[in-house]
Amino acid sequence: MRLFFDSRQLEHDPSQELHNGAWMAHSEHPGRTRSIVAAIGATETPRDFGEAPLLRVHPSDYLDFLKTAHSDWQAAGRPGNAIGYTWPVVARRPLNLSRIDARLGQYSYDAATPVAAGTWTAAYWGAQTALAATEAVLGGDRTAFALCRPPGHHAGADYLGGYCYLNNAAIAAEAALAAGRTRVAVLDVDYHHGNGTQDIFYERGDVLFVSIHADPSTDYPFYWGHKDETGEGAGAGATLNLALPHGTNFAAYRPALAKALDRIAALGTELLIVSYGADTFVGDPISHFALETTDYPLMAGDIAALGLPTVIVMEGGYATGALGANVAAFLSGF
Amino acid sequence: MRLFFDSRQLEHDPSQELHNGAWMAHSEHPGRTRSIVAAIGATETPRDFGEAPLLRVHPSDYLDFLKTAHSDWQAAGRPGNAIGYTWPVVARRPLNLSRIDARLGQYSYDAATPVAAGTWTAAYWGAQTALAATEAVLGGDRTAFALCRPPGHHAGADYLGGYCYLNNAAIAAEAALAAGRTRVAVLDVDYHHGNGTQDIFYERGDVLFVSIHADPSTDYPFYWGHKDETGEGAGAGATLNLALPHGTNFAAYRPALAKALDRIAALGTELLIVSYGADTFVGDPISHFALETTDYPLMAGDIAALGLPTVIVMEGGYATGALGANVAAFLSGF
Repeated sequence: MRLFFDSRQLEHDPSQELHNGAWMAHSEHPGRTRSIVAAIGATETPRDFGEAPLLRVHPSDYLDFLKTAHSDWQAAGRPGNAIGYTWPVVARRPLNLSRIDARLGQYSYDAATPVAAGTWTAAYWGAQTALAATEAVLGGDRTAFALCRPPGHHAGADYLGGYCYLNNAAIAAEAALAAGRTRVAVLDVDYHHGNGTQDIFYERGDVLFVSIHADPSTDYPFYWGHKDETGEGAGAGATLNLALPHGTNFAAYRPALAKALDRIAALGTELLIVSYGADTFVGDPISHFALETTDYPLMAGDIAALGLPTVIVMEGGYATGALGANVAAFLSGF
Repeated sequence: MRLFFDSRQLEHDPSQELHNGAWMAHSEHPGRTRSIVAAIGATETPRDFGEAPLLRVHPSDYLDFLKTAHSDWQAAGRPGNAIGYTWPVVARRPLNLSRIDARLGQYSYDAATPVAAGTWTAAYWGAQTALAATEAVLGGDRTAFALCRPPGHHAGADYLGGYCYLNNAAIAAEAALAAGRTRVAVLDVDYHHGNGTQDIFYERGDVLFVSIHADPSTDYPFYWGHKDETGEGAGAGATLNLALPHGTNFAAYRPALAKALDRIAALGTELLIVSYGADTFVGDPISHFALETTDYPLMAGDIAALGLPTVIVMEGGYATGALGANVAAFLSGF
């Protein structure tokens, strides 16, 4: 399996995040990626596909915001990372807002996702990494792995959040559609619901979104991922949310996975994108499932049994010490 | 003029707020109220009108949230004031969320409005103070002053924000309607746009909302208060937003005030509620207009010239040393 990674993704290194009412060290740090690289071995640097594939998912005003948010923050005389303090509740609409704090709130939904000096560069190369893996699979490879960082599945078309800035899985899905595929599925097995991916394709019938995640009544991102969210319009029925309780081990996880895979198979999927988070691991410091490292090859084997060309995109996973082993275990199942 | 205040409003005393990316001391502190009381002299304690008048504006689930947010926060093992870190961007809808962090994001739009131990008590008595002043005016008094604290105009029917929890002006307006008035106007002359009041009455034709405030492209609350917001449905044309730039002095402010008063007079208003903020003062530490203490009697005189029964409700104003003098100057103009 070809493995893609660009070292410029390490340039994103925010110092802190607001969590449960207090600043804490940022969980999504470069050490995560180093742990994975050490475990999976040599990776290939992606070529530069440019911004056009990003613009299939994200509007240009949002990309402009991401590029300039940190320099605008500095120009306003602020130290550290750019972070919002206010967000619209019922009045979100396109507005020409000049103050950086206003723009941060306009394009985000939490105070856990700072824009640091290297954020744009890292997010850009994370997306290129996803595109390189997609290109490999479109070219005939059975599977390919994109070691994306920062992760992407919480980022919507025009909002950041949950440590995510560009939606790598959605960018990969759009690239597959642009290459002629007509039925693409995203299977999101991160601990947290992939709200950004869901929003991007919620009214679309050509991209199925299936997610297995912690119950959002207790877990981030709270406002998305409930079972009554099934898609709308042309996308009606093309979103499936399978929420599981704290403490879920692989014996309890596997039936949900089977249900997810049945749906993907039933809808005539031509290409599969897996948003893989290792934060379902029992030792994850910010999550509450109970999967073991030895479960990941089994999870991967169940997915591989679909027999679909598969792009694997890295999402979360915060038990840094075990992260590399968990990713390697997952990849070994393909 | 009768002046109403309840000392239980001082029980709200949050320690900090998130502003421009960093924690700072909470600007809306009890010392503001003490400055006003010292300047305006003896006040009357309101009687208890109960929760029914609050429920004309706010749904019961929101009041339940306000009552329990701080104890739920403590039950979750958290120190200090309850404050959110994530807010829905595009997926706000009624949800049964159990985690306090989720509920904080569900019912608020910023990280500047903590729920402290005494918040509910203070907000409740602030609303009773507004109701007492309204009762006085409905009973025949020309004007009455409600020294409300915490302020109210940023609070929507089901969301807190901008130091506000219960919308005192909206509660007063609903009390006037319940007493038989059919045309009520809210004139908001706080430095910041009264987004909560606007939202509450946006589709209503019986309550006119007119606001003069700092341009929201540069100033909080950013996402509301733009001139194209004019009301919808039965409320079409019943919202008027007059945004002014940084540095506005009274010479520049007065024509906007005249325009606001013309609209109020033209619509057959029977009772006027003034959301008065003294943060238009040149010395305000978080605002950027340039009104002087001597301007406030002139502002009040222009409003009084409408000849309408008028309830004055206290909103913001953060130059604590001058705050009492500014409020007393404003009241002297009636």
